[in-house]
Amino acid sequence: MDVVVSEVGPRDGLQSLHRTMPTQAKICWIRALAAAGLSEIEVGSFVHPKLLPQMADAETVVRDAVTIPGLSVLALAPNMKGVMRAVQAGAHRITMPVSASHAHSLANIRMTCEEAIEEVERVCAYRDRLPAGQRPEVEIGISTAFGCTIQGVVQEDWVFEMADRLARAGADSIGLSDGVGYANPVQVRRMFKRLRAGLGDKAGGAHFHNTRGQGLANVVAALEAGVTTFDSSQGGIGGCPYSPGATGNIVTEDLVWMLEAMGLDTGIDLDRLAEARHVMAEALPGEPIYGHLPDVGAEKGFRYARRGPAPEGAGRAASAVACPPLPSAAE
Amino acid sequence: MDVVVSEVGPRDGLQSLHRTMPTQAKICWIRALAAAGLSEIEVGSFVHPKLLPQMADAETVVRDAVTIPGLSVLALAPNMKGVMRAVQAGAHRITMPVSASHAHSLANIRMTCEEAIEEVERVCAYRDRLPAGQRPEVEIGISTAFGCTIQGVVQEDWVFEMADRLARAGADSIGLSDGVGYANPVQVRRMFKRLRAGLGDKAGGAHFHNTRGQGLANVVAALEAGVTTFDSSQGGIGGCPYSPGATGNIVTEDLVWMLEAMGLDTGIDLDRLAEARHVMAEALPGEPIYGHLPDVGAEKGFRYARRGPAPEGAGRAASAVACPPLPSAAE
Repeated sequence: MDVVVSEVGPRDGLQSLHRTMPTQAKICWIRALAAAGLSEIEVGSFVHPKLLPQMADAETVVRDAVTIPGLSVLALAPNMKGVMRAVQAGAHRITMPVSASHAHSLANIRMTCEEAIEEVERVCAYRDRLPAGQRPEVEIGISTAFGCTIQGVVQEDWVFEMADRLARAGADSIGLSDGVGYANPVQVRRMFKRLRAGLGDKAGGAHFHNTRGQGLANVVAALEAGVTTFDSSQGGIGGCPYSPGATGNIVTEDLVWMLEAMGLDTGIDLDRLAEARHVMAEALPGEPIYGHLPDVGAEKGFRYARRGPAPEGAGRAASAVACPPLPSAAE
Repeated sequence: MDVVVSEVGPRDGLQSLHRTMPTQAKICWIRALAAAGLSEIEVGSFVHPKLLPQMADAETVVRDAVTIPGLSVLALAPNMKGVMRAVQAGAHRITMPVSASHAHSLANIRMTCEEAIEEVERVCAYRDRLPAGQRPEVEIGISTAFGCTIQGVVQEDWVFEMADRLARAGADSIGLSDGVGYANPVQVRRMFKRLRAGLGDKAGGAHFHNTRGQGLANVVAALEAGVTTFDSSQGGIGGCPYSPGATGNIVTEDLVWMLEAMGLDTGIDLDRLAEARHVMAEALPGEPIYGHLPDVGAEKGFRYARRGPAPEGAGRAASAVACPPLPSAAE
């Protein structure tokens, strides 16, 4: 695999919707995504269910997901309490949201930037005391790294100071996140180059939104800077409900097509990805779902980077598929 | 200006719609686009009105457009007959559609690739005999350069052989065109580098569609290869009417935002561009119109590359504007 496409739809996508996807549907969707070849899925968020009722079933979903062979299961947790729940459920990796914007940090996780760094430090110390085999990796995506809807410009030097401190706090990987769709390709190339120069192996992936249509353009720029992990969500779900058309995460389907067309192996099958999209869409009737590839499919002559030619139209929206059987681990 | 955004909506966009925009509305829209800072607009197509009734008023539209100070007026013409009409109307530049795919060439302009090259040669010879001051530039966008919906893969060597022969035939600029949305960023970078290496100053711009969501990603790749002219259409109009969501040209609004955010001056004002969008939308009620920027506007802290800061939300869809007054030249 040349590039890891890290699916965040079941977490970032679903938590942005007003409705709650039923637990069985989540499990079915995650299994379908894994069956399509997704090797990393962020499946839920361990926050207080009063704050995010859409994520109240995170334990159940994680417990099922970790039974899927070969799947790396990520869960988001903003603080020690959430991390402990995620560990108990068996998540392989914990993502912690840390903001470079002070205003956003307070609004999002009710901590200053300093407090968030200290929380990561505490979490890493806790993680290090866990028995071998139960120690999750701790991943940070520094959000508002490219700008913030509240404070506007975010100082780049501060972003890299944070990245450095988070690495020293024990985080395994520190990426840059643009959940507000402010980033442009020049900024992306510059900042990821600097991140990799500063952090080496601890430099993490990119989380881009497509708010201004620039999502895949930013991927191209990040690839040039050496980034090899990209978050995306199936159907681009997770857009801001207050801005029609303001799509959220970059669309997994379009991203996978583009990477494979560029000669970069993702390990993902476009037709099975279309099946997973169908599973998701069935569980979210009436919800806007984005993406170009599902409308048109792959072009005539399309070849997967490693797996060779695909039939014309590969990845076009699929018809009904059965949910993969649930293991007994699912509660 | 660092990058020229060449608006093709009034030609490529409108000719793909079933309806015909009224002549007065076209004139009003083109004036609004020019007022927003667009320095190049492809305003019409000189083909037989039976084939494209949407373009039957090309003479009138060109005659008006050439009265707009500072605007470079392009018109498409597939053959000598059309070129002569375009010259008579006063078009500054003629774009001729030439396909690298034999099958597409026959389907689109009823000529083989060889015949199309010969037609360009005849047109350039005719152009050279015109009195000084009336000689339009002849621009070619080699369509299906990145692949073809009929024949699939198009041999790259053949694309560059055509480019070479078109340059020797007298064309002033030869660009590469992906009207079917097949191109990917790696291919784009490779092919534009080769085009510039082969043709030098005669290497032309890029015409990308957003069919698979990759339009702006391809722009980033083309910029790296040194391309400085990009076609786009306001609202991305011109999508294939048979594929819902299969948007057509890259969206002018999103392109201008991205380029300016990247520090590349386009000379275009996002708020006045939003006014032009309003003019267009009013004349195309019910027609799907695309673009992300018009929904959300520019981000907090956005700065034009040369002109400095803009208010948050710049470029967000505008309310009604008056049509700029029509000059007496309009018939």
